[in-house]
Amino acid sequence: MTESRVSAAFEDEDYRRAVVDLLGAIAYGELAAFDRLSADARLAPTLEDKIAIGAMACTEFQHLLQLRDRIAELGDDPYAAMAPFRQALDLFHEHTAPSDWYEGLIKAYVGDGLAADFYREIAAYLDTRTRDLIVASLADAGHSEFVVDRVRSAIAEDPRLGGRLALWGRRLMGEALTQAQRVAAERDALSALLAGGVDRPALDLAAIGRMFARITERHAERMAVLGLDS
Amino acid sequence: MTESRVSAAFEDEDYRRAVVDLLGAIAYGELAAFDRLSADARLAPTLEDKIAIGAMACTEFQHLLQLRDRIAELGDDPYAAMAPFRQALDLFHEHTAPSDWYEGLIKAYVGDGLAADFYREIAAYLDTRTRDLIVASLADAGHSEFVVDRVRSAIAEDPRLGGRLALWGRRLMGEALTQAQRVAAERDALSALLAGGVDRPALDLAAIGRMFARITERHAERMAVLGLDS
Repeated sequence: MTESRVSAAFEDEDYRRAVVDLLGAIAYGELAAFDRLSADARLAPTLEDKIAIGAMACTEFQHLLQLRDRIAELGDDPYAAMAPFRQALDLFHEHTAPSDWYEGLIKAYVGDGLAADFYREIAAYLDTRTRDLIVASLADAGHSEFVVDRVRSAIAEDPRLGGRLALWGRRLMGEALTQAQRVAAERDALSALLAGGVDRPALDLAAIGRMFARITERHAERMAVLGLDS
Repeated sequence: MTESRVSAAFEDEDYRRAVVDLLGAIAYGELAAFDRLSADARLAPTLEDKIAIGAMACTEFQHLLQLRDRIAELGDDPYAAMAPFRQALDLFHEHTAPSDWYEGLIKAYVGDGLAADFYREIAAYLDTRTRDLIVASLADAGHSEFVVDRVRSAIAEDPRLGGRLALWGRRLMGEALTQAQRVAAERDALSALLAGGVDRPALDLAAIGRMFARITERHAERMAVLGLDS
């Protein structure tokens, strides 16, 4: 969609509402990630690790503030826009509370990677400005290099850890799919977005199937980079 | 101390070491504040309050990163520089874990205010660059207006809360003094700084007495702004 179509798109109230919904979902996701990362920082074995995780938490938080301000610009209450996603995201985190430092690291890397892939896929169907904001919000908060380094060295020292963490990665993927389906089923505005509208192509079932295949493939790539089976 | 004396000051190894010590103490304090504020964000009654507290936590974290980088510039390992202050600051937070949202708010406001007053007093004896860095690190992370507003409205609704929170403020002050004395007694470099050196005036006992009188007075002013007796 070109820049000139942005205002036309937002004149469509269904579109505006769907974008607010999507930004609300991502914003609450960033807040939940901040919450989780700042709690995981307490599991860090060293001050340096603690500060590395804290820095990731604050990067997520800065993204949240940008999304919040954009929702307000679009004429909605950002806190009301985030609220509908609270339960699904809180349940995701409740069901996947890391039991140690390494589970926390994997969750930061794999969980945020999954969310980023999913939202980026949807963002491709949106106006330029919204797409750019979403892509910037999902930029790697410095997770990758740090997590890959820490996890690979730990597995090299204790190979049994690899088996446990591979299972953990599968559990994260399963729980993420469960909660994503739940949100999709409950939020009409988001579903309508996927169904297309003024100036926007629809996502048909085959396209959705391909999208999930791509997301699953990228998940497997991330696990491989960590040295884990997916 | 004027800018031209900065390098002379750092040629004095005792001075350099004392500054690294002081920056390490403030840096660990900011990390502990980040930890505490991000945990307190979970007690927030609304999403808006939660995000307001999260923003404060991340402001403290940004200050920590600046202090960490400056310690590295001065030729020391920042993590080693922070480590000696870990026990006193962790104990302070352990002994003053807020039991509800309002105790957390008061602690953010009064505790950080106390720390800021104390470090600003010491910063007055340092070279310009160090002083500016410390003063910037201690800038109000947006606590004041938000906390004052929330606490005053809560007391207006439930006047008994005022009595409990006034006691809480006194406990915070007592615990802060206990841990500050502990640090001063243990850290020779910081004590040497207070005793003066090349190009630096000493803090005599009368000056230290006046310093504590000023800090106590500012604490009372903050409590009064909250509508609390000190």
